[in-house]
Amino acid sequence: MSSSEIETYRAKREAFINDDRSLRRENIWNQQRTEAEIKADSTLRKLRDYEASTIWKEESESILHPFPGMEFLTGRSIIVRTRIYQILSKMPKGALLHAHLDATVDQDKLLKLALKHPAMHVRVPEVVTAKNITSILPTFKPLPLSEYADGPGVTDQTYNPDTFVSIQKARSTFDPNLGGPEGFDKWVCSTMMINPAEAYGTHNTITKIWKKFASTFMVSTGLIRFVPVFTEYIREFFMSSIEDGISYVEPRINFMERYMVGEDGHQHVPHREWLIIFERVLDEVKAEMKRQGREDDFIGAKIIYSTLRFYTAKELVWYTEDCIALKKEFPHLIAGFDLVGDENVYKPLIDYLEPLQSFRRRQQEESVDIPFIFHAGETMGDGTTADMNLYDAILLGTKRIGHGFSIVKHPKLMELCREKGIALEVCPISNEILRLTSSMPMHPLPIMLNNGIPVALSSDDPGTFGHMGLTFDYYQVLVSSEITGLSTLGAIARDSIEFSMMTDNEKQRAMTNWEKRWKEFIEGILSLELAN
Amino acid sequence: MSSSEIETYRAKREAFINDDRSLRRENIWNQQRTEAEIKADSTLRKLRDYEASTIWKEESESILHPFPGMEFLTGRSIIVRTRIYQILSKMPKGALLHAHLDATVDQDKLLKLALKHPAMHVRVPEVVTAKNITSILPTFKPLPLSEYADGPGVTDQTYNPDTFVSIQKARSTFDPNLGGPEGFDKWVCSTMMINPAEAYGTHNTITKIWKKFASTFMVSTGLIRFVPVFTEYIREFFMSSIEDGISYVEPRINFMERYMVGEDGHQHVPHREWLIIFERVLDEVKAEMKRQGREDDFIGAKIIYSTLRFYTAKELVWYTEDCIALKKEFPHLIAGFDLVGDENVYKPLIDYLEPLQSFRRRQQEESVDIPFIFHAGETMGDGTTADMNLYDAILLGTKRIGHGFSIVKHPKLMELCREKGIALEVCPISNEILRLTSSMPMHPLPIMLNNGIPVALSSDDPGTFGHMGLTFDYYQVLVSSEITGLSTLGAIARDSIEFSMMTDNEKQRAMTNWEKRWKEFIEGILSLELAN
Repeated sequence: MSSSEIETYRAKREAFINDDRSLRRENIWNQQRTEAEIKADSTLRKLRDYEASTIWKEESESILHPFPGMEFLTGRSIIVRTRIYQILSKMPKGALLHAHLDATVDQDKLLKLALKHPAMHVRVPEVVTAKNITSILPTFKPLPLSEYADGPGVTDQTYNPDTFVSIQKARSTFDPNLGGPEGFDKWVCSTMMINPAEAYGTHNTITKIWKKFASTFMVSTGLIRFVPVFTEYIREFFMSSIEDGISYVEPRINFMERYMVGEDGHQHVPHREWLIIFERVLDEVKAEMKRQGREDDFIGAKIIYSTLRFYTAKELVWYTEDCIALKKEFPHLIAGFDLVGDENVYKPLIDYLEPLQSFRRRQQEESVDIPFIFHAGETMGDGTTADMNLYDAILLGTKRIGHGFSIVKHPKLMELCREKGIALEVCPISNEILRLTSSMPMHPLPIMLNNGIPVALSSDDPGTFGHMGLTFDYYQVLVSSEITGLSTLGAIARDSIEFSMMTDNEKQRAMTNWEKRWKEFIEGILSLELAN
Repeated sequence: MSSSEIETYRAKREAFINDDRSLRRENIWNQQRTEAEIKADSTLRKLRDYEASTIWKEESESILHPFPGMEFLTGRSIIVRTRIYQILSKMPKGALLHAHLDATVDQDKLLKLALKHPAMHVRVPEVVTAKNITSILPTFKPLPLSEYADGPGVTDQTYNPDTFVSIQKARSTFDPNLGGPEGFDKWVCSTMMINPAEAYGTHNTITKIWKKFASTFMVSTGLIRFVPVFTEYIREFFMSSIEDGISYVEPRINFMERYMVGEDGHQHVPHREWLIIFERVLDEVKAEMKRQGREDDFIGAKIIYSTLRFYTAKELVWYTEDCIALKKEFPHLIAGFDLVGDENVYKPLIDYLEPLQSFRRRQQEESVDIPFIFHAGETMGDGTTADMNLYDAILLGTKRIGHGFSIVKHPKLMELCREKGIALEVCPISNEILRLTSSMPMHPLPIMLNNGIPVALSSDDPGTFGHMGLTFDYYQVLVSSEITGLSTLGAIARDSIEFSMMTDNEKQRAMTNWEKRWKEFIEGILSLELAN
């Protein structure tokens, strides 16, 4: 074979590969990469190779089979020791577009917030013992002063099952054999999180892990839906997001409960008050950022109004009307509407065809516009109702798709998303822990990227999964593909801004700020002293 | 919402879904399904639903999380109890296009074949004990009469490590504490198979499971590459394939070793003799089928010449020349050429660009045509060398792709395969056991089907994985998708014939016979008495 034949082959091959990758968004965003970005990308790739063959090869008793992109809950302790992780923690992430507010704060921080309040009480269905501590769930509830309860603690043999005791008392009297007060904290946090033994052992199917997952919310909601905790919870969410380089958030708030518990311990605080609190904290955080001269590092936050996909079509109308009322009062805060809950179990979107179409008409009557931003296709199923939700989400005009995990099976749907600019909110770590994929190398993200669908990486429920911010998600994505590099991450971050519900003006501010920080980020990588 | 609006929506939705599925091969093969097929399809779907909610919901100590399409080695015992499995065992399967000859027979049958021969000997690196029996590997070798060895058995404390003892003696003297002769059989078979504890526990990564996988061949090859065993092995492969409803096979034979051991115990039997044996057995089986009046139930067999992808480009030339010589002598038997071995570890196709192109030229000079039928993309990798093999396989003109697991990431490659008719040899159970996918619902097959790529389901290494025939593979595919139904299975079987290397005349015979049996199969389903 002559060298010119080889050259011809190689040229043809390169064109073939480029053609296959031509739809990727980094090519669209970034046709002319700077020299610095090319260099930093190369640095990052080398470091990735190096760590793949060093730190990720170290087998141990506790981690039998380490590899880049492995099960997050097992590999987390390795991830945090890598240089790549440290580098990515500095990356400007753009917007966080898919996160459920009730799981956006470290659970031990949530517990600390709740512990400040004498009104917060706890009950359990039986005395907590060494035997039942791994399965028993606490129920939290703030009580009015007149009902404050100071009976025996939950590990006390005289504890009367299902009676409330103050959280402070329950903690201080927690059986020393179960770890005392720290044991209490550990136990409560474990009921609000998923651990590796559950995800990869006892609950290693979609159905089982969703049961555990749902139970974490049963516990945490009791702590969060209390005005003073809720207030500080939101603040903590904003602050930790900013800390991780996120400059805008669009959380889904679950409005299922019509009232939150007020400072007085009575459950009478309506949804509009929730938004007033949200806005007040938002303004305070913005003011603080301005004070620090970092005004443009945090553009703000909007809310995707969410309720559960198990209501009847008729029951849903109360929520759509509620959503319209909130939109009218807080037009700048309500960014969209969604239905949440396990798609594999609850009702498909098509069951809500009528109320959702009426919702659209009612919006026109009220001169508001509340885009659908539906969860759809969060499933391994092929042709199951959860998978079929993708057709309806798109037909109903969804602006983005929450997850869209199963869309990779659907050539026409991918084409449509690409052409109409329907972004996917992809939550790699959530998908893996909820057993849609057993590890990152099996995640369908590369298919989405090669098909040119805009993607916004998201954390979904970082409080429950223990991966605050977006650094861990970016990490898992970067280390499990040889094609994905720095420019891919940049394109994803840019898309998260582009496909957010910010106003054009906000987007422009966010993008300008992001580009500036991206440049600094790249310079930071180039200034690193790396061993190899 | 008016009923006409709902109707409009539903019509639009249906068109949307149909459009999304329009490329599926069942639509192309079978635009007018018979009433009987439609009815049988519905029966099968109902039965699938029924079994999904009954037999697949029964949790037990040994199977904690059963579900349709679960890990094969764990779920096998449930599968064989299902009606769907019994039904599919009767299905006419068409052609088997991807199987490595050395793993196409039940390992205990192989052992029985070998035990007949006093020439067959075995050695181990140390005395086999209760402690090492799960890790120690036997080496088998037929010896010439003058070297027959009758020393102490392999569990005897006086056994001299690494010395040969006759297999019959080793078996008859096997320590009763290790199970005696049956214990010997069990041990030997375990070294030639993968068990669930290995696949899903100790060896639960691609790298580790491939080590175990490769070791099974080290053991079995010693038994198979002996003329009298080889002869009966091929016969058993043909007969068991026929039994499962397969009417044509195209095994890959590994020609790495230049000589096989002859009846006389000397390793001097060249490749052309292997083909003479292959052909003789083939003719005998055909004659037997004719005698039974089932001539068209077995059209025959051809060989894909395979060698390993770890040779140097220079070393490869010996094999390509050998392949040409065999093709000239046995034009009807040599169907193609392939390189085998773990793509994630060994050389990529691009490393063989020169010898492969020279191979093409040499074929022209010798007036033969030996199509490439390459393994490619048998990987989870994204942009890794194994993934990149797909570009080269296609550029080099491969007729089909062995596995092509990672092709779903490549929109242009899928388009090309669809348009040029490059079929994928998809091996679901192999992929799962070799940890490319953790269960069938995560397998990319639905993506391939929706993109209209021809697919031939294949078993790869059924001897090693314990899933003889194609029934298990069809089972796993049928139960893990709501879209896949009887007509999908039919399209896959038809494609296996269409994309085989049979001559046009053979294909026509195969297809006519298949259509007749397909009709009978459908009638069989309709005549079943099902509980629900």
